Amino acid sequence: MKTKNIIIFDTTLRDGEQSPGASMNAEEKTQLALQLEKLGVDVIEAGFAVASPGDFDAIRRISDQVKSSVVCSLARALDNDIKVAADAISSAKFQRIHTFIATSPIHMKYKLKMTPEEVIKKAVNAVAYAKTFCNDIEFSCEDAGRSDIVFMKEILDAVIEAGATTLNIPDTVGYRMPSEMGAIIKTLHKSVGDRAIISVHNHNDLGVAVASSIESILNGARQVECTINGLGERAGNAALEEIVMALRTRHDIFGEYDTNININEIYHTSRLVSTITGIEPQPNKAIVGKNAFLHESGIHQNGVLKHMETYEIMKASDIGFDINSIVLGKHSGRYAFKDKLTKLGFHIKDSEIDKIFVRFKILADAKKEIFDEDIRALVSSEISKVKEVFKLITLQLSDCNLGLANAAVTISYDGKEVTDAAIGNGTMDAVFKVIDRVCNIQGELRDYKVDAVTKGKNALARVMVKVIFEENKSIITGHGLSVDTMLATANAYIDALNSYFFMKGGFKN
Amino acid sequence: MKTKNIIIFDTTLRDGEQSPGASMNAEEKTQLALQLEKLGVDVIEAGFAVASPGDFDAIRRISDQVKSSVVCSLARALDNDIKVAADAISSAKFQRIHTFIATSPIHMKYKLKMTPEEVIKKAVNAVAYAKTFCNDIEFSCEDAGRSDIVFMKEILDAVIEAGATTLNIPDTVGYRMPSEMGAIIKTLHKSVGDRAIISVHNHNDLGVAVASSIESILNGARQVECTINGLGERAGNAALEEIVMALRTRHDIFGEYDTNININEIYHTSRLVSTITGIEPQPNKAIVGKNAFLHESGIHQNGVLKHMETYEIMKASDIGFDINSIVLGKHSGRYAFKDKLTKLGFHIKDSEIDKIFVRFKILADAKKEIFDEDIRALVSSEISKVKEVFKLITLQLSDCNLGLANAAVTISYDGKEVTDAAIGNGTMDAVFKVIDRVCNIQGELRDYKVDAVTKGKNALARVMVKVIFEENKSIITGHGLSVDTMLATANAYIDALNSYFFMKGGFKN
Repeated sequence: MKTKNIIIFDTTLRDGEQSPGASMNAEEKTQLALQLEKLGVDVIEAGFAVASPGDFDAIRRISDQVKSSVVCSLARALDNDIKVAADAISSAKFQRIHTFIATSPIHMKYKLKMTPEEVIKKAVNAVAYAKTFCNDIEFSCEDAGRSDIVFMKEILDAVIEAGATTLNIPDTVGYRMPSEMGAIIKTLHKSVGDRAIISVHNHNDLGVAVASSIESILNGARQVECTINGLGERAGNAALEEIVMALRTRHDIFGEYDTNININEIYHTSRLVSTITGIEPQPNKAIVGKNAFLHESGIHQNGVLKHMETYEIMKASDIGFDINSIVLGKHSGRYAFKDKLTKLGFHIKDSEIDKIFVRFKILADAKKEIFDEDIRALVSSEISKVKEVFKLITLQLSDCNLGLANAAVTISYDGKEVTDAAIGNGTMDAVFKVIDRVCNIQGELRDYKVDAVTKGKNALARVMVKVIFEENKSIITGHGLSVDTMLATANAYIDALNSYFFMKGGFKN
Repeated sequence: MKTKNIIIFDTTLRDGEQSPGASMNAEEKTQLALQLEKLGVDVIEAGFAVASPGDFDAIRRISDQVKSSVVCSLARALDNDIKVAADAISSAKFQRIHTFIATSPIHMKYKLKMTPEEVIKKAVNAVAYAKTFCNDIEFSCEDAGRSDIVFMKEILDAVIEAGATTLNIPDTVGYRMPSEMGAIIKTLHKSVGDRAIISVHNHNDLGVAVASSIESILNGARQVECTINGLGERAGNAALEEIVMALRTRHDIFGEYDTNININEIYHTSRLVSTITGIEPQPNKAIVGKNAFLHESGIHQNGVLKHMETYEIMKASDIGFDINSIVLGKHSGRYAFKDKLTKLGFHIKDSEIDKIFVRFKILADAKKEIFDEDIRALVSSEISKVKEVFKLITLQLSDCNLGLANAAVTISYDGKEVTDAAIGNGTMDAVFKVIDRVCNIQGELRDYKVDAVTKGKNALARVMVKVIFEENKSIITGHGLSVDTMLATANAYIDALNSYFFMKGGFKN
């Protein structure tokens, strides 16, 4: 039996970033792209170059640094979109332009206001123009799930002729059931034959995106588009980790199909995505949720103790989650720390390690046991950090439920230190207000979350804030990490502020 | 075409509660059961009566109050389990006993250490014994997904003979792909015919539980077991809301099948479950995630503005989520508040409304706009509250990142007031430590989460803590709600403590 390689096309950085509130800065995107490369993703959709200067900048940085994965930019079927996309990926070793136009009657009539003939012409022109920049061209029939199959055959024939090498059949609105997607792919695969690779891109609005992807593979699709943790517009995309682990775990029936994914990088990649975006998979999320491998009931625990496979079809360690990991503490040295970083999958320059080790020591003083999750949180917060324009020097709080909550801070910026105080509705509000006052800004808080990274009362608190600093501008995410939740909160808000200035600066380049 | 009614069997209170950290007290379970009844669930699996006195007590209360849904208790194939289950549901208008035994080779060999013949005998005895208590008997082949199909036919024939009316075929470890589950159900349905109803119970370990449930329906299953938000052991069960909305939205292909679910109660039920358990669906969760109906990209927003159906296959309002809802404020009166409660689906006694209205007024003073989510949080925290043994009177905090964080509280219990102070690693830690000191306990914090209920700096903070108060005892969830995060934190910890005493008290009955 010849193995059919399934191409994994990750769009966490493009469709995933379209999850409301998941905006990432260029530094965060680059870190994530390098991790996706390590995970073994075949194609990384790094963004939508024309959408914003920030998107363009991120794709460019990723193109400079990623060496083994194809780097791809999205582009509408417009000359300028394609030119900007080509420019953004021009330094990549392997380049792909992904252009699309809607093919469903409802989209053509109401959104594009074009006839089917005009749509075909535009698609062909776009693909031909993209082909002048690189060889690897993907074409998508937007809303393929609701498109007429005879029309799709026609447009696909035309774009193949124009040079398209991958044909994507997205169920843009998550409408189709798995058996329907399978039938659509079967028909198109028969029509296309060996002339191009057929790809699917399933949205999860009705909860069946992973099953639809698998059913499509069984019917001739050779590329699946997916995201880490299933991020994406609305209910998101098919989750990469679920598709990959279904194929791997059910090797008995899918033996013919395989991917290049290093599954022991799955857990680490998932944690990196949730740390950066602040969007945590629910505990009962398949594969990467924190309960995915936990057994609660006595019956299950008893069964697993007697024979692991009674209730487990996968091992947590398969995806890189090490339960029996060594816990570090205040007496752990630089060597043990570096060894741990390597085991957790981080590859960090020595100069960076020194910086993180200092933070590790401070943490170890405040907290007896340092778990893997603490270290992941520490490193992720460090490597995705932008230049600190504003820096918190001191924070002082006082609150009484019958009195006035107040906060005082000293913040340094522009070489000077400014101190002031403010009152608020509770200490948290006072902290935000005093930072606004000192930094002369007016942030609008859109979301606030605190998570205990591990167990225990003096666990590391990971704070995530989402803030809008300018009207109609995008939501900026900030992170803070400390055993003191208030200090983590202040740092998260200041981190969002620094990220805002960094992105603003980026826009000027 | 004759409509085939699909029986919705909700197991949020049983398998859902087996999600690590999702323990609920009897009061919370009863509130949830009443909401499930309103949602139109046909069968409510209220618990596993023999598992603990708390489980037993909850099933009994639910049996007393639920009038239109069948109330069911789980029981192993043991006489005592069945007797206790029958006792727990004895006051229910419609009663069901659900008994099970494992039928897969691996479970029979390693866990049960029984021969297939012994398993059949035990199953038959259990069903026959259960039949002496009520007519409606469900039998499950545990780990059916990995069981031999010839053996299953045999055991199913035997239990039908003994009186089983529903035969459940659970994929206990989430191993099967949808097409495989479909084939299994097809074979069993052919063998069973009209002698009993075939049910499925799919786990989501590989992300395909919903698709497997639908494929099973298409092949003869007439009952699906599922949970709100897809809660359950490990990666959870098939999500009720996804199955129901897939059938409803794709009426064009599933027109033959329908459920009794009032879909406009879905959102409210989902919020109630996440508030009670502290387990929030991820934002990109299908149907009930907070991004499920949000459009982020400019292209999508533009499309929806031109014609809604370009990117929407369902409306948020279908599931009871009202985007254009009226916002209340400090000038809103009791009438507007009551009207809002009714619109949000709460049915609360007048005496209770008075209590909640007082809290609403306090909140309205601290916060300009009161959104629907604020009210849901307020009501949910109020209706699930147990008797307050410990009550926070004052909370005072002081913290400085260069000094010592300390907290002082006055807590009343047993008719006296106790005041003390403690220092901690940050204010949060100080708050927990001073409560431990005053109440003379030693709670082990297992999880801590803060969520902003809505937008804005002085949004209502919803704090969830998970605490263990006695070694080897279960994790207790506590909730706190306030614009002051620290006050909410203190209240959440004390709520967990009250819940602990309430559950301990319950054990004595």
